[in-house]
Amino acid sequence: MRIAFDVHGGDYAPNAVIEGVLQAAKDYPEITFVLIGTEKTLVSSVLSNIEMIKVTETITAEDEPVKAIRRKKDSSLVVGCRLVKEKAVDAFVCAGNTGALVAAGLFVTGRLKGMDRPALAPIFPSLRGGGTLVLDVGANPEAKPEHLRQYAVMGSIYAQHAMGIERPRIGLLNIGTEDGKGTSLTKDTFDLLSNESSIHFIGNVEARDVLDGTCDVLVTDGFSGNILLKNTEGVAKAIFSKLKEEFTRSIRTKVAAGILAPGLKRFKESMDYKEHGGAPLLGLAGPIIKAHGSSDARAFYQAAMQAKKIVEQNVIEQIQQGLVKTEGDEERCDQQES
Amino acid sequence: MRIAFDVHGGDYAPNAVIEGVLQAAKDYPEITFVLIGTEKTLVSSVLSNIEMIKVTETITAEDEPVKAIRRKKDSSLVVGCRLVKEKAVDAFVCAGNTGALVAAGLFVTGRLKGMDRPALAPIFPSLRGGGTLVLDVGANPEAKPEHLRQYAVMGSIYAQHAMGIERPRIGLLNIGTEDGKGTSLTKDTFDLLSNESSIHFIGNVEARDVLDGTCDVLVTDGFSGNILLKNTEGVAKAIFSKLKEEFTRSIRTKVAAGILAPGLKRFKESMDYKEHGGAPLLGLAGPIIKAHGSSDARAFYQAAMQAKKIVEQNVIEQIQQGLVKTEGDEERCDQQES
Repeated sequence: MRIAFDVHGGDYAPNAVIEGVLQAAKDYPEITFVLIGTEKTLVSSVLSNIEMIKVTETITAEDEPVKAIRRKKDSSLVVGCRLVKEKAVDAFVCAGNTGALVAAGLFVTGRLKGMDRPALAPIFPSLRGGGTLVLDVGANPEAKPEHLRQYAVMGSIYAQHAMGIERPRIGLLNIGTEDGKGTSLTKDTFDLLSNESSIHFIGNVEARDVLDGTCDVLVTDGFSGNILLKNTEGVAKAIFSKLKEEFTRSIRTKVAAGILAPGLKRFKESMDYKEHGGAPLLGLAGPIIKAHGSSDARAFYQAAMQAKKIVEQNVIEQIQQGLVKTEGDEERCDQQES
Repeated sequence: MRIAFDVHGGDYAPNAVIEGVLQAAKDYPEITFVLIGTEKTLVSSVLSNIEMIKVTETITAEDEPVKAIRRKKDSSLVVGCRLVKEKAVDAFVCAGNTGALVAAGLFVTGRLKGMDRPALAPIFPSLRGGGTLVLDVGANPEAKPEHLRQYAVMGSIYAQHAMGIERPRIGLLNIGTEDGKGTSLTKDTFDLLSNESSIHFIGNVEARDVLDGTCDVLVTDGFSGNILLKNTEGVAKAIFSKLKEEFTRSIRTKVAAGILAPGLKRFKESMDYKEHGGAPLLGLAGPIIKAHGSSDARAFYQAAMQAKKIVEQNVIEQIQQGLVKTEGDEERCDQQES
């Protein structure tokens, strides 16, 4: 198995990427790790299962996505996506410009058959343990009902094979739990998901219930999903910063906070996306994982573990079969109707 | 001044409503408080500035909104909205069925001139103190750019007159801060707001920055706003429930948590929507305030204070003038263009 990493992606690149990959390479000598970076950033490694691919360019957070992938064909991000397409690597992990990665995934790696738009699918933490796969959180801001149906099918298969959930509960993000709530998009999607026999659709899910683990896979358009993701981050950050302020008010509160520190740490870790690796970009012809921009070495290590699982479980092939099968179902329905 | 209350709205009705109103009536003898309820729930009061209006019906959380307001014309919710229309009261506070209140506001009270759709506008807490008025959070799930322009104008005037912010910063909820981000709705709205001379538009605001107080008024469609509102509630609830779990693990942690309790309480209060009263339903011909479903007596008291301020500051009339004025601006632009 060969897993490639963009050395230039993320706030703590290149060091965090290299450190995470070195650790994974030590722990998994049977996997080859491919570091893609410029001459300046690539370091020589004593490990035989680390390969280097030198590129001449990098895509930054400020680059306009579509322009960047057209003009910077020898950037680490574009080269990674091309290696996936050419099957020169089995998976690619990148913490760089999300828009550029989505564009390169779409135009360089290419889509699966029967898939209109790829979806970015991070795992949200859940109070009950485990997590909820949310798709899409921004790859496709203006989604149509059929896109969301495809997300549901893909998400269900991903949850089964990469998260080990036997019969994933699929929910639709909406502004009320009753049937018939929301916009024309959610109403039409509700009907499509209700008729999709390959998934276990449990109905509408409200934003307040997501962290309760109400469903295993939450389907939504990229605009609402992005609001949900960033709001979750923002609220958690705001609360922790205010708590810190309250806890450091006096010596007394500092001592008390010290006693509570292990519990707080355990809790913060349970809320941490890094434990789940990155967000797979589902719907593409090969496994591409978007790691969080603020990923540290541990997050890149976890992303490597996630890539390993996706490859071992043959998740992309399973999704391809699922998409073709449900498309086939529809064609049969159409024939019966006509 | 006369402020009406729906005695039957909210999880802790009728007691919380009556208790909150009694306190407000004691503190403000110059205001008349009108309690609208059924014979069973209305109690006699020794205070001369409390009036009772008896109705025969109530609308429940389970009622389908439009059907309910058509069939239950003598319900406390519908009667309250009618009293506002007839100017028999100056404001109406209701913690009941949100959809029914929006429908009754629209069909019974009626809209302001130049206003297409009313917006529900709660105040989100801000880390810097104060708060951010967010509109809409669900009155109009499928909004058009012109609706959002009207929200921006209304929100700006509300923030000036009811929140005392001299030059409110207006933000547009979006999935990136750069111009040109998002969906066709946010792109078109961005252009409209940029050209709206009556407001101080500061551009796109991401969901992760809302609680930082990045803007004073945040404009969005009712679907995304509802996701934002309920997610904020859900994440805060999840974090506090997990903290409680960690803090009650042992006697040691319980003692430590006891020392931190005042700070935690202060913090929870600063995050509490109840301090800001309820969410005004803006765009209607009179002041209607939607109190939170879980409002306690204090929340109803605060909602009374909010209604008082809206009436004193003549906010609805100000909004009407603002809407007519900006509509006039547009007509002038059209004439110049043609």
